[in-house]
Amino acid sequence: MIRIAIDAMGGDFAPSEIVKGAVQASLELPVELILVGKADKINKELSKYKKRGALSVVNAEEVIANNEAPVSAVKQKKDSSLNVAVSLVKKQEAAAVVSAGNTGALMTASLFGLGRIPGIERPAIAGLFPTKKRPVLVLDIGANSDCKAKQLKQFAEMGAQYCECVMHYKSPRVGLLNIGEEKEKGNELVTEAWPLLKDSPINFLGNVEPKEMFAGEIDVVVCDGFVGNLILKYGESVSSFLLDLFKKELTKNPITYFAAFLLLPAFAGIKKRTDYDEYGGAPMLGINGVVFKAHGRAKAKAFKNAIRATMEAVQQDLVGRISKIEAKQ
Amino acid sequence: MIRIAIDAMGGDFAPSEIVKGAVQASLELPVELILVGKADKINKELSKYKKRGALSVVNAEEVIANNEAPVSAVKQKKDSSLNVAVSLVKKQEAAAVVSAGNTGALMTASLFGLGRIPGIERPAIAGLFPTKKRPVLVLDIGANSDCKAKQLKQFAEMGAQYCECVMHYKSPRVGLLNIGEEKEKGNELVTEAWPLLKDSPINFLGNVEPKEMFAGEIDVVVCDGFVGNLILKYGESVSSFLLDLFKKELTKNPITYFAAFLLLPAFAGIKKRTDYDEYGGAPMLGINGVVFKAHGRAKAKAFKNAIRATMEAVQQDLVGRISKIEAKQ
Repeated sequence: MIRIAIDAMGGDFAPSEIVKGAVQASLELPVELILVGKADKINKELSKYKKRGALSVVNAEEVIANNEAPVSAVKQKKDSSLNVAVSLVKKQEAAAVVSAGNTGALMTASLFGLGRIPGIERPAIAGLFPTKKRPVLVLDIGANSDCKAKQLKQFAEMGAQYCECVMHYKSPRVGLLNIGEEKEKGNELVTEAWPLLKDSPINFLGNVEPKEMFAGEIDVVVCDGFVGNLILKYGESVSSFLLDLFKKELTKNPITYFAAFLLLPAFAGIKKRTDYDEYGGAPMLGINGVVFKAHGRAKAKAFKNAIRATMEAVQQDLVGRISKIEAKQ
Repeated sequence: MIRIAIDAMGGDFAPSEIVKGAVQASLELPVELILVGKADKINKELSKYKKRGALSVVNAEEVIANNEAPVSAVKQKKDSSLNVAVSLVKKQEAAAVVSAGNTGALMTASLFGLGRIPGIERPAIAGLFPTKKRPVLVLDIGANSDCKAKQLKQFAEMGAQYCECVMHYKSPRVGLLNIGEEKEKGNELVTEAWPLLKDSPINFLGNVEPKEMFAGEIDVVVCDGFVGNLILKYGESVSSFLLDLFKKELTKNPITYFAAFLLLPAFAGIKKRTDYDEYGGAPMLGINGVVFKAHGRAKAKAFKNAIRATMEAVQQDLVGRISKIEAKQ
């Protein structure tokens, strides 16, 4: 049984949806979950479920909020659910940690507590984006605003490993996000990174533009954390801008209003296809331990999916595989 | 009358839609248009219109295609419609030039022929993006993949002038595109640019995230050309991805199919709101002359709008205004 530490107090719907997701995971997956946080609150939530699997509770009195500055919060709140959950991995009482809480704080606590995989210069946050076919893994989506070419190469290698281990994509196709397909296109960073990715033992297809990404013609897309975070936010903004325009058009007159009513199931179908929650969240790659950031808005099902991905990363020895690649270079 | 040189052979629908747009502009606006390109073809198009304003034709035998490498095309095809149109501005036979052709070639020919405004380090391409309110001007959207902080400051100043002169926005609100609102957020480039924009004589509101941009809370958004070009392409990809998903859902069963039929006018309304063609195209700012890149897919109406914007930039002495700002610093 794989032991996973759960930050039960992190996320918009903590602890209720986190505990609910953990209970579901404990019934469906070969895992043992350690729920970390205010014991009385967690036990109260647990008491709602008669049927549950291997679950235990570890008390932690403090909570790091989403709007807190990561470094000071991690340093000051030693007894926070997030810090204590990470420390269980450090003490080898758990094999991995999942949190839906403050992203920066989870990265900081993991770096302080577990460190980097030897050879990895910078850990990255990887996110799954919807496409016309299967999801694409994009990294970095926010851990590093300024990157060096070698770091992009390592992101590519880590992302390819994750796709293979956890997503079960065979020989994942890796692309470098760019504004053109030719290798001399783009800024200094990407033109410098191109030959490094070409020489790396990954299935590198070259530069990719956004349209190839959404066509589902690529599995891993590499970019610096400023660009990655920006396109994540930009995509969300374009989607909600278009939906908003659409709603306005739909409520213009009784005919469109009626049509909109008929289309409610279609809207639900699109929401499901584009919902980031469906994929559970984002792994933090390059940390010397399995750390998974569940979506801040994760409800039970999304959180259960996050636990499943985390379990697979442990089963497949993701950290060991990444270490081996870096050791060879 | 303002004399404007028109590259009649550039763009997907040249020369027919270009000539048609020019004829319309000649009837509606106080301009004198010089159509540059293959004289026989242009005259054949012109003969379709009985009613037309001040139009003349200058012959140029060559055409630069969209897929040609800009620098070599501009150097080799001296007698191309694009080169000859720019040279009319150089010889002061025209006050401005409009082309729907190869963007890189237009920038190159303009830089070679007209040079930069004294003090301006790099010219930028500015594009209008739709928002919930009035359009926002984004620059640079592709002329400079690597930028320095001072260049971003100049983009901000040029963009603000354009918005005031041509869009008639009073005291345009300028923002720096970023992944967070706090001034210490982002990569080295934007954190370095922030204080320069703050000290500049523009209405600088600080960092803006994509959601503020689409909310229409800002008039000018500044970024480097790699990021600008990427978000332009990313936005188009997200839109067509969503529309494609939607179409699939709509054709799933007879009820949704019927609803989709009822919604055709709504779709058209959205297309109009998000259509880049409506705004005519993108000015090239920082060139020592008024140069306007019409959209490659511009039809007559869009091309006429491009001519109108170009005329206003000349009327308002955009180049002179930008020169004055830079001379003061």
